[in-house]
Amino acid sequence: AGDGDVCEVSGFEVKKVLRDCAREKTMFLQGKIAEKEAVVILEKTPIHVDTLNELFRESQLTMESNNDIYTTYCLQPPAHLNVIKTTVVCPATEKHVRKYQEQETVLVEETAEDYRTITLPFLESQSFSLQWVYNILEKKAEVEQVVYEDPDPKLGFILLPDFKWDQKQLDDLYLIAIVHRRDIKSLRDLTSDHLPLLRNIQKKGKDAVRERYGIKGDKLRMYVHYQPSYYHFHIHLNALKYNAPGTGVDRAHLLSNVIQNLECDPQYYKTRTLTFPLRELDGLLSHFREPKDSAKL
Amino acid sequence: AGDGDVCEVSGFEVKKVLRDCAREKTMFLQGKIAEKEAVVILEKTPIHVDTLNELFRESQLTMESNNDIYTTYCLQPPAHLNVIKTTVVCPATEKHVRKYQEQETVLVEETAEDYRTITLPFLESQSFSLQWVYNILEKKAEVEQVVYEDPDPKLGFILLPDFKWDQKQLDDLYLIAIVHRRDIKSLRDLTSDHLPLLRNIQKKGKDAVRERYGIKGDKLRMYVHYQPSYYHFHIHLNALKYNAPGTGVDRAHLLSNVIQNLECDPQYYKTRTLTFPLRELDGLLSHFREPKDSAKL
Repeated sequence: AGDGDVCEVSGFEVKKVLRDCAREKTMFLQGKIAEKEAVVILEKTPIHVDTLNELFRESQLTMESNNDIYTTYCLQPPAHLNVIKTTVVCPATEKHVRKYQEQETVLVEETAEDYRTITLPFLESQSFSLQWVYNILEKKAEVEQVVYEDPDPKLGFILLPDFKWDQKQLDDLYLIAIVHRRDIKSLRDLTSDHLPLLRNIQKKGKDAVRERYGIKGDKLRMYVHYQPSYYHFHIHLNALKYNAPGTGVDRAHLLSNVIQNLECDPQYYKTRTLTFPLRELDGLLSHFREPKDSAKL
Repeated sequence: AGDGDVCEVSGFEVKKVLRDCAREKTMFLQGKIAEKEAVVILEKTPIHVDTLNELFRESQLTMESNNDIYTTYCLQPPAHLNVIKTTVVCPATEKHVRKYQEQETVLVEETAEDYRTITLPFLESQSFSLQWVYNILEKKAEVEQVVYEDPDPKLGFILLPDFKWDQKQLDDLYLIAIVHRRDIKSLRDLTSDHLPLLRNIQKKGKDAVRERYGIKGDKLRMYVHYQPSYYHFHIHLNALKYNAPGTGVDRAHLLSNVIQNLECDPQYYKTRTLTFPLRELDGLLSHFREPKDSAKL
């Protein structure tokens, strides 16, 4: 590949901006490279501390505005200090394009009956495989990743790093606690019967993180997603300082609130309306938009 | 100033990294410029669509890895296409340094009694001025900003853009609904008596946003903060697609959940333990860490 590919990317013809993340200085593009469909991802790189001296000495500076003690400049660093990480997918399929395409999301308000008549039948029709979860629980995969295990079949769980965490720094610590029991699909299934399980994960999860990583319980965010990305009950744990994707109030439920809500109302999550975002192309959304079926009439 | 200042920044001596936002490609630095204390903020700029052709044609490309259809490159753009926005505060005071300094936050679990014995006395001792809020409600300030008003003294509110929103695009739409009544400090004061007020804001707020901006209710996030940044009850509204700061599950409470919780338990927010983050330097935190006073014994 080598040189051949390099020439190709420089000949990339942009057809469409799939997504523009101004805050993250990242852009997803669709186009063609030598007649082949391609997706190109551009991401400016973080500023590196050890290049700062050269950056200030060797850059071209243009003052843009000045007000009292505040001055802004446009700084043009030497090219080698300011690179863009570029990822090329080529040839790209429709699936790649859809993956990176910005999608509108909508908030869905799911009543208890909606869950029973729309969401649950949809989930059951999808038959998502949980084999990868069972492989972890049965020690057939990611064994060396396990941070902590409570093997109890009713109250136990396995704690391990989320795949999004590279484990190189604690700033973005992200772990998952996966319960051993296999009969809880999501938050919707929880009742006060599960309080011993939830309290066990809350206590032992915090203890394990403090022992292994030195992060105390009050600097740890523990929450569940609804909808989750897979329907085997699990709890997310991150460093509080890390604004991980998926910590928004639209989708996350703090473990401490879940416990308290079940303490006060054993059927809280069986009876309430739960609000969550769905992407426009999510199969579940179309079911919410269809005329309700006759079961509701 | 002009040229003189330009020379100064290029002579900036870095003493300390105050904050490093790798995800946003931004860095906050403390140091000296010609013996004067200075804070310098570096922020890589977003990628601009109209420079893409030149970017691909004129950059130097180095292949870094290749796996099947995925290839990554290091791209060195011409310096003028890849600038860093630089803001200089000089001379900077201790207050500037503290403002930009990364601060640890901790999660606090505030029981109903903690609120009564710690938080409420602390708030009352601070006597934060709400004059700027009253100026808005009395039409003495920001009159031309008002998007919608329901003037009812019990159920009414004023809807206006949050100061963080520049109103140039709808992607990051951010509005605030400020209630006319002045006797609700925060979420903690709400009971089922306030349900007509909350439902009124939910309905009329959504209607006003749809009429003025064309954004439908299912693409709008409505929530309150606890702790709020000021103790006059208000509700945040943003475009669902915008991950605004403060939408995290640590601090935000969805309006639809607040309404539902009060419908099921009129004293929900008067009795529950509420979890929220506090920065290490927040005055309130020290009160939570002090030995509880004798009132609790």
